[in-house]
Amino acid sequence: MPQHNAFYAQSGGVTAVINASACGVIEAVREHGDQIGKLYAGHNGIIGALTEDLIDVSQESDENIAALRHTPGGAFGSCRYKLKSIEDHRTQYERLIEVFKAHDIRYFFYNGGGDSADTCLKVSQLAETMGYPIQAIHVPKTVDNDLPITDNSPGFGSVAKYIATSTREAGLDIASMCATSTKVFILEVMGRHAGWIAAAGALAGEDATQPPHIVVFPEVAFHRKDFMARVDQCVKDHGYCVVVVSEGARYEDGTFLADAGNTDAFGHRQLGGVAPTLAGMVKQDLGYKYHWAVADYLQRAARHIASKTDVEQAYATGRAAVEMALAGKNAVMPAIRRLGDGADYAWDIIEAPLEQIANHEKFMPLEFISEDGFYITDACRQYLSPLIQGEDFPPFVNGLPAVARLTLAKVEKKLTPFSI
Amino acid sequence: MPQHNAFYAQSGGVTAVINASACGVIEAVREHGDQIGKLYAGHNGIIGALTEDLIDVSQESDENIAALRHTPGGAFGSCRYKLKSIEDHRTQYERLIEVFKAHDIRYFFYNGGGDSADTCLKVSQLAETMGYPIQAIHVPKTVDNDLPITDNSPGFGSVAKYIATSTREAGLDIASMCATSTKVFILEVMGRHAGWIAAAGALAGEDATQPPHIVVFPEVAFHRKDFMARVDQCVKDHGYCVVVVSEGARYEDGTFLADAGNTDAFGHRQLGGVAPTLAGMVKQDLGYKYHWAVADYLQRAARHIASKTDVEQAYATGRAAVEMALAGKNAVMPAIRRLGDGADYAWDIIEAPLEQIANHEKFMPLEFISEDGFYITDACRQYLSPLIQGEDFPPFVNGLPAVARLTLAKVEKKLTPFSI
Repeated sequence: MPQHNAFYAQSGGVTAVINASACGVIEAVREHGDQIGKLYAGHNGIIGALTEDLIDVSQESDENIAALRHTPGGAFGSCRYKLKSIEDHRTQYERLIEVFKAHDIRYFFYNGGGDSADTCLKVSQLAETMGYPIQAIHVPKTVDNDLPITDNSPGFGSVAKYIATSTREAGLDIASMCATSTKVFILEVMGRHAGWIAAAGALAGEDATQPPHIVVFPEVAFHRKDFMARVDQCVKDHGYCVVVVSEGARYEDGTFLADAGNTDAFGHRQLGGVAPTLAGMVKQDLGYKYHWAVADYLQRAARHIASKTDVEQAYATGRAAVEMALAGKNAVMPAIRRLGDGADYAWDIIEAPLEQIANHEKFMPLEFISEDGFYITDACRQYLSPLIQGEDFPPFVNGLPAVARLTLAKVEKKLTPFSI
Repeated sequence: MPQHNAFYAQSGGVTAVINASACGVIEAVREHGDQIGKLYAGHNGIIGALTEDLIDVSQESDENIAALRHTPGGAFGSCRYKLKSIEDHRTQYERLIEVFKAHDIRYFFYNGGGDSADTCLKVSQLAETMGYPIQAIHVPKTVDNDLPITDNSPGFGSVAKYIATSTREAGLDIASMCATSTKVFILEVMGRHAGWIAAAGALAGEDATQPPHIVVFPEVAFHRKDFMARVDQCVKDHGYCVVVVSEGARYEDGTFLADAGNTDAFGHRQLGGVAPTLAGMVKQDLGYKYHWAVADYLQRAARHIASKTDVEQAYATGRAAVEMALAGKNAVMPAIRRLGDGADYAWDIIEAPLEQIANHEKFMPLEFISEDGFYITDACRQYLSPLIQGEDFPPFVNGLPAVARLTLAKVEKKLTPFSI
C-alpha cells in the first residue's frame, strides 16, 4: 500500500477524555508507519484544515503523546464550526481538497459529537461528489451521551462519575448543615436536550431517599407547583433536599427555565443559570435557605476523577478509527457495543455508518425516567452504573495533575491564505 | 485520675476533612480509655449539648470511625449557632452545665472556625464564671483559612487543591475552545472576607501567563475599568482569559459585587452569584463570549481530591486536642506551626490560647497580593504550595467514593426538654 498522510482534529465541546482518543489515534498511526505516513493535526478542528493550519504530530515525543491520555481539554484546539452543504459552500470543499492534496492527506479522523459527525460525513462524500479519494472516520466524543447507535459516548462516563461523586459529597455537606442553615441544594449540570448527565447524578444515592432526592430532566416538562411540593416533602422527610437539574430544564411550552439569550455557532441557545433561577423560586415559594452550584466546564474537564471505563473506551475508539481506515472503511464511526450488564459488564467496538449518526440526538428513553418525572428508574441505573466504574487518576506533580504540554510544531504552509 | 466523659461537636460550615479531625479525636479518646470515659458527640454542634441531643460514639465500630477520615461533611451534624455572652443568656450556660453534669462531661472538644472558637472560649470560662470544672479545647477547621496564629486551617488545603486542580482543568478546556467559542471563563470560589481560596486558584499555573490569568480578591477594591482592561489584554495576548473570583469581591465602598440579600445566623450576608454578575459585565463591556462556574459546596466537600497534607493536619489537630485535655489544658487550640518551606516543608503542633483565636480573622497579607491587585506574589505561592501537596484518595466502591455510614445511636435523655 502506498503511504499517504492522515489528518486528525477535535471538534465541539471538549471532554476529560477526548485527548485519550487522540492518544489512541496517534499511537495506532505510529504503529502503522508502514501504511500511514505523517499524521497532521488540525489546529482548532476543521478550521485547521480549511486554513492550512496544521500541527506536525510526528514532532511530539512518545511520552507527550502518552500523557494525552490523562490530559483534559482538546490538546490541538477544538472548534464550534459546521461545514455547510456542498451546494451552499462549494468553495470550502474545494479548499479542503486543495489542502488535502498539498499535504497528501487521504485519511480524515474527526473527533466530535453529532454536529461534528455531520462535518465528517460531508468530508467522507468528497470522493463521490468531487472525486478526491479520502476515507473519513468519525471518533465519537460528547459529554451529552446523545450519539445514536453507540451504547454510550466517550466523555460521558467521566462527567457522570464527576457529577455523581460531587453530588454525594455535597449531599453529605448539606446533610450536616440543614438543622440550622441550608435546606435546599441545587446543582446545575450540562445536557442541553438530553438528561443523561442529570440522570448520572442519581448514582450518588441508592434511591430517592438519599441525595439527590430530585432530578430535573430536560425531557420532562417542568411544573413549578409539582416541583415545589416535592422539594417541600423532601425537606419535611429528610431535613434537606438535594436537586440535580439539567441546564436544559424547560417548561411545557419549551421555554428554558434559564435562557441567557445567546446562541453559539451551531445556532444552539447558550444556557446557564437554571440553578440560581430554581433557587430563587424555592426561596419565593417555600422560604427555605438554599445554596446552588453550577459546575459548567469543571464537570467536563474533571480528568482527575475520570471513569477508567470511559478512558479505556475513549482510547479504544481512537485506535479503532485507525484500524477501520486501514481496512478501507469510509463514513463510519467506531461505536461501543454493550455485551453485558452489572458484574458482567463488557463491551466491544462495532462499526456504525455515519449517516445514522450525524444530526441524530439520542434522548433518555422514557423507561429511564421514573413515573413522576423526578428520578431515574432501575433500568436507567443498570445502564449508567458500569460507565462510571474504575478510577484512572492522573499522575500528580507538586500537588496538581500533570498534563501533556505539546510542542505543537506547525507544518509549513504551501498554499495561499484562505479566510472562512 | 477519676474517669469523666467527653463531648465533641462540629460547628460552622463543614469541610472535606472535618471528619478527619473527628477521627483523630475519637481514636485518641479510645486509646485513653483509662483516663476518659465515654465520648458523646453533640448532634448539630452546640445545639446537641443544649438540647441534650447526644450521640453515643462508643457504639460506632473502629472501622466506621476510621472511615471518617475519608468522609466529607460533618458526620455528627454541624450548626450555625453562636452562644451569646453569659450576661445576655445565663440560662443557656446553666443548661449546658446541667447537661454536662447529667452526663458527667468534663472535656469539651469543639471543632470549628472563628465563630465557633468564641463558643468554645465561653464554655472554657464556665469553671471560673459558674464553678463547673470543664476543659474546653477548640479543634481548628475552616476552608477560609482565616484563623490566626495557626499557619493554616485544616480544611483549607483541600479546597485549595480542588480549586487549583479545577482551574487547571477548566483552563485547558477553554484554551481549546477559544478560537471559535468561549473567550472568558470565570470561576467563583468561597472566601467571604479573606482571599485565601481565590489565591489558591493561582497555583493552577506557573505565572499569570497561564490560567488563571486574573484573581479577584475581597481584599482589593474592584474597579470595573481596570478589570476589563486586564481581561481584554489577556484575550488579546492568549486568546482567552480565565478568572478566579472570590465570592467576597467588593467595590471601593464595601458593597459586594453580588449580594443575594440574605444573612445567616451569625449575621453574615449570604453571598453568591458574583461569577454570573462579572460575566454579564464582560459581555456588556467587551462583548466576549463567556462561561462561568460557581463551585459552592462542591469545593469544600471534595474529599476525593483532598490534600494529603491537609488530611494529616486535620487528623493530627484532633488527636492533639485530646492530648492537651489530658495534660490539663483549657481554653486552647492545637495550632499548626510551619517549620520549613518548599522541599523542606514540615510542621508540628503548638498550643494557641483561645482568646487570641476567637473572633479574629486572618486576612491575606498585602505582600501576598501582586502590586496590580490581580494576582499572587511569589511569597504567597511559597506559602500556599506545601498545603496542597500529596493525594489521599478515598477508597472507591462501585465507582464512587466510599463514606462512613455511622449508626448515630442517641444517648438516653435524663433531663426535661430545653428549647433554644
